[in-house]
Amino acid sequence: MREIGVGLLGLGNVGAGVVKLLADNAEAIEARLGARVAVRAIAVRDVEKDRLVEVDRSLLTTDANAVVDRDDIQIVCELIGGYTDARATSLRAIKNGKHLVTANKALLALHAEEVFGAAEQHGVDLYYEAAVCGGVPIIRALREGLASDKIESFYGIVNGTSNFILSQMSQEGAGFADVLARAQEAGYAEADPTLDVGGGDAAHKLAILVMLCFGTTVDVDKLYVEGIDKLSPVDFEYAERFGYVIKPLVVAVDHGATIDARVHPTMLPTNWLLADVPGAKNALYVRSYALGPSMYYGAGAGMMPTAMSVVSDLIEVCRNIQAEATGAIPLRSYHRMVHRELRPMTELRSRYYLRFGVLDRPGVLGQITTILGEHEVSIAQVVQEGPREPERPVRVVVLSHQAKEGNLQRALQQIARLSVVVEPATVIRIAE
Amino acid sequence: MREIGVGLLGLGNVGAGVVKLLADNAEAIEARLGARVAVRAIAVRDVEKDRLVEVDRSLLTTDANAVVDRDDIQIVCELIGGYTDARATSLRAIKNGKHLVTANKALLALHAEEVFGAAEQHGVDLYYEAAVCGGVPIIRALREGLASDKIESFYGIVNGTSNFILSQMSQEGAGFADVLARAQEAGYAEADPTLDVGGGDAAHKLAILVMLCFGTTVDVDKLYVEGIDKLSPVDFEYAERFGYVIKPLVVAVDHGATIDARVHPTMLPTNWLLADVPGAKNALYVRSYALGPSMYYGAGAGMMPTAMSVVSDLIEVCRNIQAEATGAIPLRSYHRMVHRELRPMTELRSRYYLRFGVLDRPGVLGQITTILGEHEVSIAQVVQEGPREPERPVRVVVLSHQAKEGNLQRALQQIARLSVVVEPATVIRIAE
Repeated sequence: MREIGVGLLGLGNVGAGVVKLLADNAEAIEARLGARVAVRAIAVRDVEKDRLVEVDRSLLTTDANAVVDRDDIQIVCELIGGYTDARATSLRAIKNGKHLVTANKALLALHAEEVFGAAEQHGVDLYYEAAVCGGVPIIRALREGLASDKIESFYGIVNGTSNFILSQMSQEGAGFADVLARAQEAGYAEADPTLDVGGGDAAHKLAILVMLCFGTTVDVDKLYVEGIDKLSPVDFEYAERFGYVIKPLVVAVDHGATIDARVHPTMLPTNWLLADVPGAKNALYVRSYALGPSMYYGAGAGMMPTAMSVVSDLIEVCRNIQAEATGAIPLRSYHRMVHRELRPMTELRSRYYLRFGVLDRPGVLGQITTILGEHEVSIAQVVQEGPREPERPVRVVVLSHQAKEGNLQRALQQIARLSVVVEPATVIRIAE
Repeated sequence: MREIGVGLLGLGNVGAGVVKLLADNAEAIEARLGARVAVRAIAVRDVEKDRLVEVDRSLLTTDANAVVDRDDIQIVCELIGGYTDARATSLRAIKNGKHLVTANKALLALHAEEVFGAAEQHGVDLYYEAAVCGGVPIIRALREGLASDKIESFYGIVNGTSNFILSQMSQEGAGFADVLARAQEAGYAEADPTLDVGGGDAAHKLAILVMLCFGTTVDVDKLYVEGIDKLSPVDFEYAERFGYVIKPLVVAVDHGATIDARVHPTMLPTNWLLADVPGAKNALYVRSYALGPSMYYGAGAGMMPTAMSVVSDLIEVCRNIQAEATGAIPLRSYHRMVHRELRPMTELRSRYYLRFGVLDRPGVLGQITTILGEHEVSIAQVVQEGPREPERPVRVVVLSHQAKEGNLQRALQQIARLSVVVEPATVIRIAE
């Protein structure tokens, strides 16, 4: 039986999962492919370190270049993460004519042009299912399943750590810091959680999805990105009272000349499917011209789910090799893309949840609502409550009708200057 | 630019959608493919009939064989439905070396061996995304997205008409016949709704999914199939009271030696994602070894959603033609399948909702619960209520713990013989 040689870069969580899944399902994979997938070398930082799977030590090397230079390796799986080393090694693999399977969202988001361009130039396959929503086969669904359709917008929960934290805050009424600490203990959050809870990881995935769905490159550092760390338990209470759930969303809408693409916590009506995506799970809700709405749901991270996507990509590349059909330009591929500008956030029209901390003085509510009205932010509902004690702030919560973000921000600046306003507004956009 | 010739069999709802989508998205499709998709002939029953799209009349013919015999046609789209004509014409197309895209679930469910076998023998592509869940790219997700995984079980809402009817019954408290009549008026149900509401259509889709997920052929006529026509508004009231939603499900579990595969209305906990699949929408919830749970949701029927799947299949075949890679054996392909027996329903272990109509006599509840207990059906909850008038039946509703279906059925036979039981049991299985 023919053997196809594979080199792994990285043997952490996902790398170990790949080795395990290739072993566990070897028979089925061979039967499906008519070929054997042989891992021939694995680049690691430390060959002596204990690993999550049993692996032949002779496969390990600290020299990533040696792996991507080997003649008996046809496919390289890049599972290092980050983008400095990964970029150089991935490009070197491509230039050597190796097909590349990568789980590296940062690399693709920040260096799409270079990496996709190199793959096209050298006629190699480039697969990246694991880079977005882990095990959920969302890249395939969009690229091939919806190949004949025009995608108009999408809403996604693409960061499992953030979804886990907001789900816990919602269920338990606990504060952000408490839940984060527990998530870190349980292994759901990194020691440095900034990339997850700050929205940076979601922004990388958003850029890849925009590229795939709209055929557009965007400047990742110009995306509007807001993390989940400003939310307070009381926001979840109000959300529930008004019939909403707060979820960490990426949102993108194709407006033709411009693209609306942003990362921020969002209030969703409880009857939306995305509102029910629990714990650390991921999901993408897509609207397209012919199909209408569709949704894809599953594990967005974790050793075996992510490895599943990597190995499914591997199998597909192997199948292309078997059929002598590698290097086909992927549908919705990069080289036909145009660069489009992001629509400025000031142009966004949305409904808003606004929470202020104010001193309980006569006329405060009137001052706030007047300023909102002067900026064409019209109000659907207002609640004022809290301890009626002198000098203790009370809460004013406003749900607005649809308003322009630029107008709202100007109104909020003016409101922040009122002497009775002691806590600046917490703003949560409401999806419709 | 290269042209790839396509022949359509059928120009009804889906056929018209295919023509429209190919025209609407022609530019994008050409750009993605580097080739033009040219519809060269369309077989119809009546060339004079008004059509849902504008179409060049010279393309129309009543001779389906003439379409599949043409040398300038490389791909045939079979959109006739049914399986007598469709089978003969599809097999003829395959023998002529045409690639086949089909939306015909009955054909694939009942003649899988013959049709897939012919495709393999003649080295042509056979794609059928539109046959299950309409526009939802579920076939691709399972075949390629989860190619490296082992699928353990799935739960699906695959018949939009049934889901629409149960959703309406649940929302409005209306009866089956009323809602069906309105669904027929609104075009959500056929004039003869038997195939939809009786579960036959779902059984065809179930057989295809079992084949794809478990690598197993099953005898379609041996599947356990129960329609939705026995449900009463009061069942929806109890479902809500106990925290459930009633959905029309296909369920399949791989037990190794045998396969559990069945079609019946099921009570789902309200926090399941499938419980929220509204109206005529479809969804498939899959559990697999590496990925864990995943779900795929969208429009399961309708002109444009179904056409979207057909055209996406067309594009993929065109791409294979461009890459000279047609006829590759699909992952999870038919020819490696084994035939496995269905697990008898008597072996099923499930929780049950049971509703009886009984005369309000002393000791009735005791008689029923005693018989259930004697057959090892242990009871989680019992409710007895209804008009307390002599000779008017009251309702007894039982929620059981997990029990064996064979035991339950024997108990129900015995209960039915009690003189005080005036309405036989309505049985709804509860998913866990």
